[in-house]
Amino acid sequence: MGEQSALKVCVIGLGSMGFGVATTLLRKGFDAVGYDVNEEVADRFVAAGGCVASTVCEAAESADIVIVVVVNATQTLAVLFGEGGAAKVMQKGGTILSFATMSPEMARDFERRAGELGVRYIDAPISGGALRAAAGELTIMASGHAEAFRHARPVLDAIAMKVYELGDEAGIGASFKIVNQLLAGVHIAAACEAITFAKAMGLDMDMVYEVITASAGNSWMFENRVPHILEGNYSPFSAVDIFTKDLGIVSDIGRGLKFPLPIASTALQMFVMTAAAGMGRDDDASIARLIAQITGLELPEAAGAVK
Amino acid sequence: MGEQSALKVCVIGLGSMGFGVATTLLRKGFDAVGYDVNEEVADRFVAAGGCVASTVCEAAESADIVIVVVVNATQTLAVLFGEGGAAKVMQKGGTILSFATMSPEMARDFERRAGELGVRYIDAPISGGALRAAAGELTIMASGHAEAFRHARPVLDAIAMKVYELGDEAGIGASFKIVNQLLAGVHIAAACEAITFAKAMGLDMDMVYEVITASAGNSWMFENRVPHILEGNYSPFSAVDIFTKDLGIVSDIGRGLKFPLPIASTALQMFVMTAAAGMGRDDDASIARLIAQITGLELPEAAGAVK
Repeated sequence: MGEQSALKVCVIGLGSMGFGVATTLLRKGFDAVGYDVNEEVADRFVAAGGCVASTVCEAAESADIVIVVVVNATQTLAVLFGEGGAAKVMQKGGTILSFATMSPEMARDFERRAGELGVRYIDAPISGGALRAAAGELTIMASGHAEAFRHARPVLDAIAMKVYELGDEAGIGASFKIVNQLLAGVHIAAACEAITFAKAMGLDMDMVYEVITASAGNSWMFENRVPHILEGNYSPFSAVDIFTKDLGIVSDIGRGLKFPLPIASTALQMFVMTAAAGMGRDDDASIARLIAQITGLELPEAAGAVK
Repeated sequence: MGEQSALKVCVIGLGSMGFGVATTLLRKGFDAVGYDVNEEVADRFVAAGGCVASTVCEAAESADIVIVVVVNATQTLAVLFGEGGAAKVMQKGGTILSFATMSPEMARDFERRAGELGVRYIDAPISGGALRAAAGELTIMASGHAEAFRHARPVLDAIAMKVYELGDEAGIGASFKIVNQLLAGVHIAAACEAITFAKAMGLDMDMVYEVITASAGNSWMFENRVPHILEGNYSPFSAVDIFTKDLGIVSDIGRGLKFPLPIASTALQMFVMTAAAGMGRDDDASIARLIAQITGLELPEAAGAVK
């Protein structure tokens, strides 16, 4: 084992992203303990050679680095600072890496709470899907104290292809992620609107995909999400509910700053409508299905896929 | 001179795109005559070694291929079918290449009119800026009769890197371009909204550009237009008025089909607002300046640049 194995690491949340992070750490020789509230999910990590604890408290006990891979600020608050929370039982002087997308305000609050408990906090939202998490190739938009980065460096290097150090306090990483989510959410909604509009004009959708991905109308999200529509597969690579939440945060910040966001607000309403129509847990390309339902358009359907 | 020089080619409209197309044809040994209503623009082609005519009629007289590089359907109608129009005086059996973005309906009408005059029509909207036009590397989203493609092939190959043959009648190329413009317009408006929002949150805009272009929030337009904002340079690479027009066509088609387009419609309003504020002829990244005016945000300013 290399030097890094001297760091005791705890991964809270073993869903698609957390599982990839935790198995990457194992593969790279870290002493990593996992925890997930869902036993099936935890068992999958055990099957992959991992060690799991039965409570957050047990998992984080005397950990040097605690990585929180949960979905939002509320869950982050609970696992770090709730009853038996990780921030209370981990090693003093240890470092928390918090991955969830949340408001800058929440991130700053968590950094302050961590400081009161004698631990450091890196506001570290991530970009890159489950495959890149499993490959140790995440992009991390991080901010926090330089000492926290120094301490967590071996872990950050193990799990990420690129770590942006964006500032010396929490909230800055969160703000960058919020800008990314604004664009990503708008681009998903626009991709769904454009590809169904193309179909309504009688165009061949596969050909539209080929032409647009080679043209100035392309976006990372158009290229990534439209294939789900072409295949009629709405199994959730990333669910509608995630962008309903993230564009909701964007919207809240905009109102707080008195900053108008007409495009992002319209996109948010498209996600809300899709969730309202019962597709909140399906893939976010389901905005195309909402439009098809409204307009009577027929989209491709995959046998056996989520409809 | 190769075989292609046997084709007499006429280029109507010598603006930034037409100039690039016409000089590419000269460079590749074609007998190409140009025309532009603006004498200064025409003189520039002469200075580049080109030959210009003083009327459309004179330029198109007995031409085998007429390339129309004007800004919209109205101008296309005038130069092709108006008094002394090119379609009336060009070689019978010749082929028109029409580059302007227009509704599929107009493109079909022009094909029909051309047919009545004994000439062929390729609905051939283009993608790629002035630099790619000058390099002979345009992307063309084309539709029309197979015989027209056969006839125009040497010219198409000379001026384009990629020619998509999307169908055997006019209107299909126009529809593909319309889908591209929907996405491109939304992505420009979203890029302007996101980068100014980032600034309002106190982020370093250059760093935002670096992080986003490496993340899932990226788009071709974000990558291409945001540098104009970072440099404070709103000289028109592509003017606000172009997307006001193109998203207007998108909106018209949507209403005609009874197809809702919430995202595109919101983006259109951002372009209309920016034009209304007096920036219609400035670069389309000027939506960021509109947002800055409204919110009191200070954006970078370049000395000597259009403000």
